[in-house]
Amino acid sequence: MVDLQDVRAAAERIRGVANRTPVMTSTTIDRMVGANVFFKCESFQKAGAFKFRGAFNTVSQLSEDEKARGVIAHSSGNHAGALALACSMLGVKAAIVMPRNSPPVKIAATRGYGAEIVFCENTVESRAEVAGQLIKKHGYTLVHPYNDERIVAGAGTAALELIEDVGELDHIYAPVGGGGLVSGTAITTKSLNPQTRVIAAEPEKADDAYRSFRDGRIYPSVHPDTIADGLRTQLGEVTFRIIREHVDEIVTVAEDEIVNAMRILWERMKIVVEPSGAVSFAGVLKMKAALESSRVGVIISGGNIELDRFFKSLLG
Amino acid sequence: MVDLQDVRAAAERIRGVANRTPVMTSTTIDRMVGANVFFKCESFQKAGAFKFRGAFNTVSQLSEDEKARGVIAHSSGNHAGALALACSMLGVKAAIVMPRNSPPVKIAATRGYGAEIVFCENTVESRAEVAGQLIKKHGYTLVHPYNDERIVAGAGTAALELIEDVGELDHIYAPVGGGGLVSGTAITTKSLNPQTRVIAAEPEKADDAYRSFRDGRIYPSVHPDTIADGLRTQLGEVTFRIIREHVDEIVTVAEDEIVNAMRILWERMKIVVEPSGAVSFAGVLKMKAALESSRVGVIISGGNIELDRFFKSLLG
Repeated sequence: MVDLQDVRAAAERIRGVANRTPVMTSTTIDRMVGANVFFKCESFQKAGAFKFRGAFNTVSQLSEDEKARGVIAHSSGNHAGALALACSMLGVKAAIVMPRNSPPVKIAATRGYGAEIVFCENTVESRAEVAGQLIKKHGYTLVHPYNDERIVAGAGTAALELIEDVGELDHIYAPVGGGGLVSGTAITTKSLNPQTRVIAAEPEKADDAYRSFRDGRIYPSVHPDTIADGLRTQLGEVTFRIIREHVDEIVTVAEDEIVNAMRILWERMKIVVEPSGAVSFAGVLKMKAALESSRVGVIISGGNIELDRFFKSLLG
Repeated sequence: MVDLQDVRAAAERIRGVANRTPVMTSTTIDRMVGANVFFKCESFQKAGAFKFRGAFNTVSQLSEDEKARGVIAHSSGNHAGALALACSMLGVKAAIVMPRNSPPVKIAATRGYGAEIVFCENTVESRAEVAGQLIKKHGYTLVHPYNDERIVAGAGTAALELIEDVGELDHIYAPVGGGGLVSGTAITTKSLNPQTRVIAAEPEKADDAYRSFRDGRIYPSVHPDTIADGLRTQLGEVTFRIIREHVDEIVTVAEDEIVNAMRILWERMKIVVEPSGAVSFAGVLKMKAALESSRVGVIISGGNIELDRFFKSLLG
């Protein structure tokens, strides 16, 4: 299993390459929660999300032969952009399989980082088939978005920096989708301060991790109709094992709680956070009675959100 | 006239009270502009804009008698919130005269900082009349939003921090409305590095400062129909004198250039910036041919923008 040494090694690999993102605080929010809240803002990470940490950590460890052949992923979200950017920095070819109906802005962003986009139909089968054919033909290495120890170790570097910067915490919150971020957060936090409570926050409308944690087996994510598009995935074997061992609790939040948390972050802290990125703070707001006067770390996972309609409306 | 010593004295007064806002950079934007761009993000200032610097600097210098009687301002913008917050920190009563039809969110924010809101009609006459009556009755001291040397010196502390943090600049951009921010920026910058070019950026649709600068006399701001609501005011005698002496150039930008600059700041830097706050960067984008490979400072003046409609649309 991943341990603190793996996280520290990942931190060395990404040093000077990934952004050491700022920890932000707000007296208004502290008053609102009744605690000292430290936000680790991965929205300011390269490619706009924590995903870059794990992607760079993984690709930089590939063999020379694997690097020469290139990597592949299927994603239309933050993993795609992060992997494309990490590969372009490392001189490795990246092919990203995306559904044909992906938002043009995401296609453009991923292509902008130098990846080759390969379109598939919007089904699990088509995605796997297209990726499988390309792997067979070109010998690409598949980089999974979360079910990989190198990805988890990379993700854990965010909590490592947070704790280095602000010291010991009583609670730490991270969102859970596939579980890469919260498992990396949990390993790092529990290794440094075993008494810190690690809480995963998840949308009610995509509560497969909550049920999996409760029942001890991985449930699939079925029709996860949540605004938090980054958290629609299900846990993997690697992340589930870590979560069972190191996470204390999973809290679920409603859609309006997610939007409310996001709105507070935008209006009060003036940071652009995507819905998935606000889920951890929605968990804090929901559980604030249990947090009184404590020190709370919150990982804001990313800031990639489609703003086209908003800006068009501004011009009238 | 205000000098660097006044700015340094203001910096001492606001130390530990105002936020020392972060200087942010983006490799994507550097590539886009072809220069090293350093953003001084006053959107992260207390009450969401640079205005808090001047407001606190001014109120903290009032006599005990003036403090005991209280202050008044007419504003429905960032000056109102900044003054209300500064007064609440200093235990001074603040009355803010606002048009009856001001956005409810602005009224609530200013009231939230502890100010008394006094409504007037939406005309210059009504505003002056209401304020005049209150001053006569209560002995309030009027705090002007920009035409005051203490306000200018306070505003200049943003550029002071920026230059302290990143060193000498080749160019520095600030928006111009009433001229408080750019005159404070110009005094600070030219005192520290006389060869740095100071550029004021202004909306084309509110180009009274541009014309005033060109013709050597203050023009009123007539029907300033720009999205940059913080820049609809006209220069004052105090700020105009400083601008004529210390600003090198005024650049005007179109509405779509303002929205485009704002969009880049939101999407690429993940910071919430109000339209007025993006005008300086719009000036940079417009003049980028003249900035090649140089070091450019950009003051982002604030981040207060109404997001009600945006968040309602998210919940469907």
